Amino acid sequence: MQIGMMGLGRMGANMVRRLLKGGHECVVFDINPASVAALVAEGATGATSMEDFAAKLTKPACAWLMLPAAITGQNVDKLAALMAPGDVIIDGGNSYYHDDVDKAEQLRAKGIDYVDVGTSGGVWGLERGYCLMIGGPDNAVRRLDPIFATLAPGSNAPDTAASSEALHTAQLGYLHCGPTGAGHFVKMVHNGIEYGMMAAYAEGMNILKAANAGKKTRDVDAETSPLPTPQYYQFDIDMAAVSEVWRHGSVISSWLLDLTADALKQDPELAGYGGRVSDSGEGRWTLKAAIDTGVPTPVLSSAVFQRFSSQGESLYADKLLSAMRFAFGGHHEKPKSDTGAKAT
Amino acid sequence: MQIGMMGLGRMGANMVRRLLKGGHECVVFDINPASVAALVAEGATGATSMEDFAAKLTKPACAWLMLPAAITGQNVDKLAALMAPGDVIIDGGNSYYHDDVDKAEQLRAKGIDYVDVGTSGGVWGLERGYCLMIGGPDNAVRRLDPIFATLAPGSNAPDTAASSEALHTAQLGYLHCGPTGAGHFVKMVHNGIEYGMMAAYAEGMNILKAANAGKKTRDVDAETSPLPTPQYYQFDIDMAAVSEVWRHGSVISSWLLDLTADALKQDPELAGYGGRVSDSGEGRWTLKAAIDTGVPTPVLSSAVFQRFSSQGESLYADKLLSAMRFAFGGHHEKPKSDTGAKAT
Amino acid sequence: MQIGMMGLGRMGANMVRRLLKGGHECVVFDINPASVAALVAEGATGATSMEDFAAKLTKPACAWLMLPAAITGQNVDKLAALMAPGDVIIDGGNSYYHDDVDKAEQLRAKGIDYVDVGTSGGVWGLERGYCLMIGGPDNAVRRLDPIFATLAPGSNAPDTAASSEALHTAQLGYLHCGPTGAGHFVKMVHNGIEYGMMAAYAEGMNILKAANAGKKTRDVDAETSPLPTPQYYQFDIDMAAVSEVWRHGSVISSWLLDLTADALKQDPELAGYGGRVSDSGEGRWTLKAAIDTGVPTPVLSSAVFQRFSSQGESLYADKLLSAMRFAFGGHHEKPKSDTGAKAT
Amino acid sequence: MQIGMMGLGRMGANMVRRLLKGGHECVVFDINPASVAALVAEGATGATSMEDFAAKLTKPACAWLMLPAAITGQNVDKLAALMAPGDVIIDGGNSYYHDDVDKAEQLRAKGIDYVDVGTSGGVWGLERGYCLMIGGPDNAVRRLDPIFATLAPGSNAPDTAASSEALHTAQLGYLHCGPTGAGHFVKMVHNGIEYGMMAAYAEGMNILKAANAGKKTRDVDAETSPLPTPQYYQFDIDMAAVSEVWRHGSVISSWLLDLTADALKQDPELAGYGGRVSDSGEGRWTLKAAIDTGVPTPVLSSAVFQRFSSQGESLYADKLLSAMRFAFGGHHEKPKSDTGAKAT
Repeated sequence: MQIGMMGLGRMGANMVRRLLKGGHECVVFDINPASVAALVAEGATGATSMEDFAAKLTKPACAWLMLPAAITGQNVDKLAALMAPGDVIIDGGNSYYHDDVDKAEQLRAKGIDYVDVGTSGGVWGLERGYCLMIGGPDNAVRRLDPIFATLAPGSNAPDTAASSEALHTAQLGYLHCGPTGAGHFVKMVHNGIEYGMMAAYAEGMNILKAANAGKKTRDVDAETSPLPTPQYYQFDIDMAAVSEVWRHGSVISSWLLDLTADALKQDPELAGYGGRVSDSGEGRWTLKAAIDTGVPTPVLSSAVFQRFSSQGESLYADKLLSAMRFAFGGHHEKPKSDTGAKAT
Repeated sequence: MQIGMMGLGRMGANMVRRLLKGGHECVVFDINPASVAALVAEGATGATSMEDFAAKLTKPACAWLMLPAAITGQNVDKLAALMAPGDVIIDGGNSYYHDDVDKAEQLRAKGIDYVDVGTSGGVWGLERGYCLMIGGPDNAVRRLDPIFATLAPGSNAPDTAASSEALHTAQLGYLHCGPTGAGHFVKMVHNGIEYGMMAAYAEGMNILKAANAGKKTRDVDAETSPLPTPQYYQFDIDMAAVSEVWRHGSVISSWLLDLTADALKQDPELAGYGGRVSDSGEGRWTLKAAIDTGVPTPVLSSAVFQRFSSQGESLYADKLLSAMRFAFGGHHEKPKSDTGAKAT
Repeated sequence: MQIGMMGLGRMGANMVRRLLKGGHECVVFDINPASVAALVAEGATGATSMEDFAAKLTKPACAWLMLPAAITGQNVDKLAALMAPGDVIIDGGNSYYHDDVDKAEQLRAKGIDYVDVGTSGGVWGLERGYCLMIGGPDNAVRRLDPIFATLAPGSNAPDTAASSEALHTAQLGYLHCGPTGAGHFVKMVHNGIEYGMMAAYAEGMNILKAANAGKKTRDVDAETSPLPTPQYYQFDIDMAAVSEVWRHGSVISSWLLDLTADALKQDPELAGYGGRVSDSGEGRWTLKAAIDTGVPTPVLSSAVFQRFSSQGESLYADKLLSAMRFAFGGHHEKPKSDTGAKAT
Repeated sequence: MQIGMMGLGRMGANMVRRLLKGGHECVVFDINPASVAALVAEGATGATSMEDFAAKLTKPACAWLMLPAAITGQNVDKLAALMAPGDVIIDGGNSYYHDDVDKAEQLRAKGIDYVDVGTSGGVWGLERGYCLMIGGPDNAVRRLDPIFATLAPGSNAPDTAASSEALHTAQLGYLHCGPTGAGHFVKMVHNGIEYGMMAAYAEGMNILKAANAGKKTRDVDAETSPLPTPQYYQFDIDMAAVSEVWRHGSVISSWLLDLTADALKQDPELAGYGGRVSDSGEGRWTLKAAIDTGVPTPVLSSAVFQRFSSQGESLYADKLLSAMRFAFGGHHEKPKSDTGAKAT
């Protein structure tokens, strides 16, 4: 079927490629004409402006936006002004689901269907297919089924006959999760879980890295807690090999572990990284949803907060702790430079 | 090659089966004669006592113990008294690695090699193979290589040529991690990570479950925090379908997620469970290792502590919080019975 | 000076009493006429309606609202319609500071000053004085200084000469924290800290309570982690006496500890409580502010999440953990009833 | 009464001064003769060796050791060899209570009583008195009562008549908590609580510090989470004044807050500190006790782990997170230098 794609960054462009390969007709637009030209060369129909883009879509039109969350809203508004009742706009970016809920209500008044799609798969999606979490009105989602089926990984997994339609498409890698907003809600929680899993691996590997602590000379002063039983910390663990062996038959095998093992094979000391871990909005939104609904999330929040700390944001709190220790106990801070030496 | 197996519970018996299928000769012993008889019927050589077991092993003997951690130590001592220099004893149970380090030193004096093997794979190991994390002296571990190769999953994964011997066996699902104790140390951290991953999924799914909070009537009283924006919590999420779709192409796909999806397909409300989550020793030991070595583990510890809470162990602390709230603010506790109603 | 007080619940009525004792003239109103009558008997001027209340205030009028957060907004709107430019409305309730920021902007257009006051002190404020955290325009806050000075604890603490006006009033127990909203912002964070401190005491006391764990019989099964060194857990701690001794010269002495010691003297087993700990909005709002600004708050969030757990909200997550444990390891849940027995 | 004091560092020397002022006779010894001479000048009896020290104690002797935990054990052994049945040795240092339990059993065989005393009060103890948590046999603790009564703060607090002997001495600032080890156990938990309280204040103050985030320019890139509502983060909070106002009538007033307010008055930006927060053993031991007994301590552990992070110990984990983010999403790390700029 025909679909319009607006926003031809890495994600958008790769999705068009997967759709073209699946036999769909793609009308593409981006503010960067080179991005358009590249896909035209691969078989897409190019548009020179948003107006041209809208005009080239056969009615009822299907237009997919793959834009940064910060500019999605304004572009939806512009595009909606060029569209007619019965058309459908799909937001496939990393939007906050609140915005989807609000926008859907606004567009419903114009007779335009608004569908939100959370996509997971990152840079691997072109090859593996994208895991799609979809929110929107039934009829619109149903109409887009051929598009979703092509973008999703498909049925290479040996699944049994599904007991419901939801389970059937889920086995193919896409799912209609509920009304508009539900797609990004489920994707948001997916990312929250991702943070927690990543932190679980990272903390565990950090313990493995410290398993030779008993071999190291340790400062002996009142500000350094002694290692009580050095005889139990004499192991030099091969980080790459351990992450590899866990991939085979262990309870903690996962795709994230596959990637971790690859990364550690190339650089077991991770010397190429400084340790400043960014966080995108989804982790924060997940926590806000948990707080609103009163759901305890000690693990997911610890993962997010550790990222904040890695960004240097615990600095004032840490200074205050040192100030208190000095005030009641006369404890002087150990210089930070010692830390570096210790960490290597 | 020949190997003795002592302790024929679910794990030990299945390992024997996998070894027999791999062409090894197995001498088996258990205090329960029926367990011995069952495996004799499948081709193993049975022993009627520990003395008989030791006598039937060809020198230099290899004896694998698959016993509960609490009785491993005393059985190793008894068996060691029946063995000779050059023999090797393997502890494949869930022992604390401290005990392995101590025991290895003790047996070294007698010329007996002590090897510890952490095994992951649970009830699925017979079919999938066991992920083996091994600690012990080089020569002993090398001698046991055919056994490890059979127990481990093997090379069904499309791996590239390994750049080291460690990576080579790791790709087959077994790894010599270091001297005795290193195997259970790596297995311990594996379980710590497992706790964290499980909690990440559980917390995230719990948020999905609460996504329809805006549809529910909520108590309006000073002791209930209001839901600020009910319009954003109107989703009835199909838990089984979401866990299924995440298996296909998402960043959080994993074997634990495969099992979760299966469990939710059968019982989406998890009505068969009461919510009391046991913890075995490994999670606790992981935290102790982190504390000893000064490694921050906010995620892994939160996962362990949530299990303690599920076991009812936060009760006195919670009562104390209510007592303080009454003392400074005159707040009366809401009855617990309200909670149940709210949770359904 | 003259001040109007609307909302004569426990907090509002006691504030009027403290103001009357301080020589101020109080016009009082509440939808419950009996509450009005009670304070009229103590010297206040009563009002029979909001209109009457507004009419009895000398221009420029000062009206203090002490209402539940949920109905503050609508009452401010009604009252504002009866007021004139130059008047000031004070919100002394537990409002979300976002609402204050929004409301102040709205009233500014009408020439009415909006001041928000976070008050701490609970049921003890009448006697001890209230700690006041104030937000609003300079001129309005300055005009209300006599009121704040009377409500606050005053100078019984042996403070040195303050180096700034802010420090001077802070030593008396009230502080102009910034523009409207700043008062409730600082109060919100105060409550966030309160949650953390309370949890620190509660967790610590819970460990003391468990100090005799080595004396108890423990289930011996695969689902119960053994107590490794019972000889170190043979202490029967006198909870009331410990909380009392900490009040005298220890680093952790505090007013919350004073209240805790009192509560434990009366009921060391806290048998009067069930352990369901409510949370009001401030703890949740504190976390949202931390998330918005990227500030790590592992301790404050753990305190809030433990309250959610005490309310039964971890139930589905806990069931899911048990389901996973059964799926990979065949572990059966221990019945919850065992927990109760263990906890006593 | 007569008491011997061995170890004349800041704590030991000040305790001798408080005891001399209380009319006790003190025999003092330290490996540094100058420390002995200083106290002799103030009225103590000096000893030139451990033998001399032991000889100068009237039978039955009472010898108090105030030494670093690392060397306490060996000194107790040496001293015990010079003592006789009926004598008592007191360990007032920061020992691990396990060592006390073990040592008491060992000395019991020789007829020597071993008493452990956890002391809180830091550098302020000389003036305010020390909060004493005591473990040991009844008769020995009773005999030392005059010493404890002098060291403790005493009865300046307006307490009511105590209902038990424990509560009576607790009101004076000292408490016999149980058999040997109980003193340091209670002190250990005290410090665990201290960590939690300190972190609660530090995290809260850190949020206050970030209350002007909406005024700052923020990087706009895919690796920086945007501030959703800058209008609510426009407050420049006077940190010193806020900590001061909270001291007067608020729920979170405490001695730690008194010290915090002092520190912030002198240096609101805490420019004199680098943010590396040491931890002594007690916080770690508290967590181990919680883990052994299955008590959930999410708050206390978060406080300890944040200190580990401040010491640089999350570095490898953070690098691993960045490596994973690059692997699945192609995310490049933001340089650490940006962090510094952001934090100021």
